[in-house]
Amino acid sequence: MSFKIPQKASGSVSSEIRIVLERGRDIPDFISLAIGNPAKEAIPVDKISEAAAAIMEAYPMEILQYGPATGCTELKEWIINRMSEKKNMPSENHSVLITNGSSQVLGLVARCFTETGDEVYAEAFSYPNALNAIRCSGAVVKGIAMDEKGMIPSELEKAAQSGKGRYIYINPTFQNPTGFTMPLDRRKEIYEVAKKYDLLILEDDPYEEIRFKGEPVPSFKSIDDAGIVLYAGSFSKTLSAGLRVGFVYGDQKYIDAMASVKGCMDGEIAQYTQKIVHYAVSHMDYEEHLKDIQKIYGDKCNAMREILLSECSKKVKLSNPDGGMFIWAELPEDTDMDLFSEKLYEHAVGAVRSSAFSSVPTIPGTAFRLNYTALPTDKIIEGAKRFAAVTRELCGD
Amino acid sequence: MSFKIPQKASGSVSSEIRIVLERGRDIPDFISLAIGNPAKEAIPVDKISEAAAAIMEAYPMEILQYGPATGCTELKEWIINRMSEKKNMPSENHSVLITNGSSQVLGLVARCFTETGDEVYAEAFSYPNALNAIRCSGAVVKGIAMDEKGMIPSELEKAAQSGKGRYIYINPTFQNPTGFTMPLDRRKEIYEVAKKYDLLILEDDPYEEIRFKGEPVPSFKSIDDAGIVLYAGSFSKTLSAGLRVGFVYGDQKYIDAMASVKGCMDGEIAQYTQKIVHYAVSHMDYEEHLKDIQKIYGDKCNAMREILLSECSKKVKLSNPDGGMFIWAELPEDTDMDLFSEKLYEHAVGAVRSSAFSSVPTIPGTAFRLNYTALPTDKIIEGAKRFAAVTRELCGD
Repeated sequence: MSFKIPQKASGSVSSEIRIVLERGRDIPDFISLAIGNPAKEAIPVDKISEAAAAIMEAYPMEILQYGPATGCTELKEWIINRMSEKKNMPSENHSVLITNGSSQVLGLVARCFTETGDEVYAEAFSYPNALNAIRCSGAVVKGIAMDEKGMIPSELEKAAQSGKGRYIYINPTFQNPTGFTMPLDRRKEIYEVAKKYDLLILEDDPYEEIRFKGEPVPSFKSIDDAGIVLYAGSFSKTLSAGLRVGFVYGDQKYIDAMASVKGCMDGEIAQYTQKIVHYAVSHMDYEEHLKDIQKIYGDKCNAMREILLSECSKKVKLSNPDGGMFIWAELPEDTDMDLFSEKLYEHAVGAVRSSAFSSVPTIPGTAFRLNYTALPTDKIIEGAKRFAAVTRELCGD
Repeated sequence: MSFKIPQKASGSVSSEIRIVLERGRDIPDFISLAIGNPAKEAIPVDKISEAAAAIMEAYPMEILQYGPATGCTELKEWIINRMSEKKNMPSENHSVLITNGSSQVLGLVARCFTETGDEVYAEAFSYPNALNAIRCSGAVVKGIAMDEKGMIPSELEKAAQSGKGRYIYINPTFQNPTGFTMPLDRRKEIYEVAKKYDLLILEDDPYEEIRFKGEPVPSFKSIDDAGIVLYAGSFSKTLSAGLRVGFVYGDQKYIDAMASVKGCMDGEIAQYTQKIVHYAVSHMDYEEHLKDIQKIYGDKCNAMREILLSECSKKVKLSNPDGGMFIWAELPEDTDMDLFSEKLYEHAVGAVRSSAFSSVPTIPGTAFRLNYTALPTDKIIEGAKRFAAVTRELCGD
């Protein structure tokens, strides 16, 4: 028997996060700043539990039989209203498709809108699952140089001149991994390049509601007069990651295409979890809840950043996120990243190195992504102290 | 703006079921035998409701945070035990991946194990979503002639000589749409062809536990000495379709490949629904439950079949399923299917015509799939009477 697994499925996706977890398992008192889980204390367990009981009581047969392919009707309506009214997004001829977290959107857009060899543009450091989803679909990721405002428009334009581009993958607000937020003027420049070269924009925006300082920046979708932006949103950071409810909002014709492909390749997701989300957001003061969790995340970020600022080598450059889950710690360019990683394990702390996020394999970078949300604050502080100690040891004061 | 949606996503999948539902909406007292939903009375609502409450109480944080990518650990163990011990399947070097219903398996196998232009072999009449999933992945469906024992081995071999084949998609037990069950000798012949031509076999087996007569036939997976069978199973027909919990069981290397692609393209499915399924199957007498629902399905099938046998035109050939959800009614070859469908609407009854299931576009067939599970038994009987009346009217006595 000689069945050969195609290349796209045979390269087991090397997950740096998994490597850190596995190494850490054997280290006493190990602190992992690697994983990007939401803060436990930000999950409204009682509200969700109440919702789960109420939904099972009220709609047992609806949630236990097959449901509508594109998602739970009342949740779709809630999302459409919120996107158009609260988020100033266009609504005419727009629709929504409920997905298995916003993760599924990343794979679905790649599957639907690219063919083998097509190009997708992503920032030089970007979300690994998004990059892998593009590659698994047969398309090619082209990494575009970025600065603290995100993807650089002139660099995007150079790449787009190939004529092979299909879409731009971008996480413009509190970016994973850097924590950077793209300002409005930069968004407008990127949008113009997209229009000029017939590119769609997949705006991956899971963190936007956990802003803890600064003023909101209009989304790509809100300036989308040409209907080319597919907006991926999620309840994973605001309610519960485990319920796996996300969505994509966009022009009807693209939503229809995705619904058609999803319908036959994946099937609809569970009605129960969708109805729980709808019940929870409808029966709680959602705006107050968002304020509560923004404070939780802001406090955790501050706790980490204060330690890093005061205890890291002065050669380390730290991002200053206004929201989201990560601080990006850039080390001097001559840092030996293998040595640095080993030293982190010696100090019983783990973080994900920049190479894991690189969309340009030849530019692995010399940075680490530090998560401040998953652990209790005392652990975050201790983890930051250990990371800072390694920077002093290897990069000088 | 001139972004073009690729062919694979632009053909809105014409769903004959949807057409029947939409036509039926305007017809008073319409009875649809089109949809393949499980019987309401076969869903153990109380047990599932109890499970949902117990799980939320016991593991709130586990189900509300991100969980293991390949599925809930205890459910995976339960499935592996059941497949190896109850179903006599090989277990060495085997593993399981939990999916969004078994639907997701159909798309995932196509995405992982084919490349553009590769061939997948399916029975002449087969499950439309499976065929569409193959086409959406860029592969080509080759329909293989079938008889009442299923796919014909010599016809499969002829097709496989192209050298382009990657796998066989087959639903061997109580097939959708025909209700046919492939006997063991035929399975062995198909298996030999698969081995000879380096084909995998995707054995789609969602109905196997709702056998209401006859003796179980060993699965392809149970005779799989070469490790080439991917077995797709589901809790949709035995517990609840709405919870969307299915799985694929097979050789570790194929499961790993699928887990890797699923992990970055779709993400894991909700822990909550998986844990509900595990709690339910562990806290009820599952074997007794299966006997109960087998009786429900057997009674409903008998109710429909008795009417069809006594009231249909003698020119109609009816399948005699030992389980599953469908009877296949073959009309004379010269039947005008458009006229017949219109007559069904006139008689306020709907069923799905064979063209919807055809994997060979030039052979639409002259049959209808009749579902006996979704509606209450009195409606099934009345629907069957109406269908039979049309056969007498158009096919003669």
